[in-house]
Amino acid sequence: MQEKTNVSNSPMAVEESRPEDRSAIGEIARRVKVFTAEEERTIFELFDEYLQTPDSGYAFLSAKVAQQLVGFACWGSTPLTEGTYELYWICADPVRHRQGAGRMLFQAVETAVRSQSGRLIIIETSSAEAYLPAIRFYQRMGCRQAARIRDFYSPGEHLLIFVKYLSPSQKSQ
Amino acid sequence: MQEKTNVSNSPMAVEESRPEDRSAIGEIARRVKVFTAEEERTIFELFDEYLQTPDSGYAFLSAKVAQQLVGFACWGSTPLTEGTYELYWICADPVRHRQGAGRMLFQAVETAVRSQSGRLIIIETSSAEAYLPAIRFYQRMGCRQAARIRDFYSPGEHLLIFVKYLSPSQKSQ
Repeated sequence: MQEKTNVSNSPMAVEESRPEDRSAIGEIARRVKVFTAEEERTIFELFDEYLQTPDSGYAFLSAKVAQQLVGFACWGSTPLTEGTYELYWICADPVRHRQGAGRMLFQAVETAVRSQSGRLIIIETSSAEAYLPAIRFYQRMGCRQAARIRDFYSPGEHLLIFVKYLSPSQKSQ
Repeated sequence: MQEKTNVSNSPMAVEESRPEDRSAIGEIARRVKVFTAEEERTIFELFDEYLQTPDSGYAFLSAKVAQQLVGFACWGSTPLTEGTYELYWICADPVRHRQGAGRMLFQAVETAVRSQSGRLIIIETSSAEAYLPAIRFYQRMGCRQAARIRDFYSPGEHLLIFVKYLSPSQKSQ
């Protein structure tokens, strides 16, 4: 376990995802065990769009410890809005939960959105029990549930929309 | 005005949009005067995707009277859902308002969604005053507002989400 110990002691860094992160992103997506096969394919599709098309609207961030991927986030500007951004996925490797990858990725997305004069981060998630830890995480990150669309994903599985307002208008809520 | 009179007396029909409808779709989108230039470009982009890529996820319907376009609708299945469909745009030529093109298009979308075992139609629209007639139209079509995301489009312009449940689970609302 020498290698793992070394990895744990190294500092965590968040950077723009690189082509070589692709397979590790897929592995983490599988390990979190909440995504369907179709959702896993979608993550790869968006990652390839991100790599190939500079204005694809999708951006990926990788959290790494000693060059090993420990989490990733996918976000982008919401078309036809001024200053609204969407956080599509944020995943920390389950074997490294509670080591801060999720928080570091969320903060990096928030910083990137602010740097583009973003006002609002939107997160769409599911009411399914498997997403409860994610929902609690969004709440810890300062997001609040703004909407619920019943039976959106499938009968009994609702869409929940979380929001985080970044601009001073946050105070007027 | 002979031609126009003939047109008015002809029955209205809704059919899958054809390549030759492209410019008339653009003209109607401009005449309704609610779309930004970016939104108009998006309508063309989706129309071209619809024509070129059979599994693009976008479908267009044209309402015609005597072969003249009097309205159009764009709809499609919502990715990563089972049975949820989105009505992206529905536009009737303003010079023909109150002649039933909107209702006929909405009913055609609903029929198409039902034929694909769709359960739920989602419509995202803006709280801007220009969309009030559209909102009243959705309500007349049996849709109800299920969510409101403040400042989504821009500061002061909110996202409203309308829903129409098509399955028997509608009764449990």
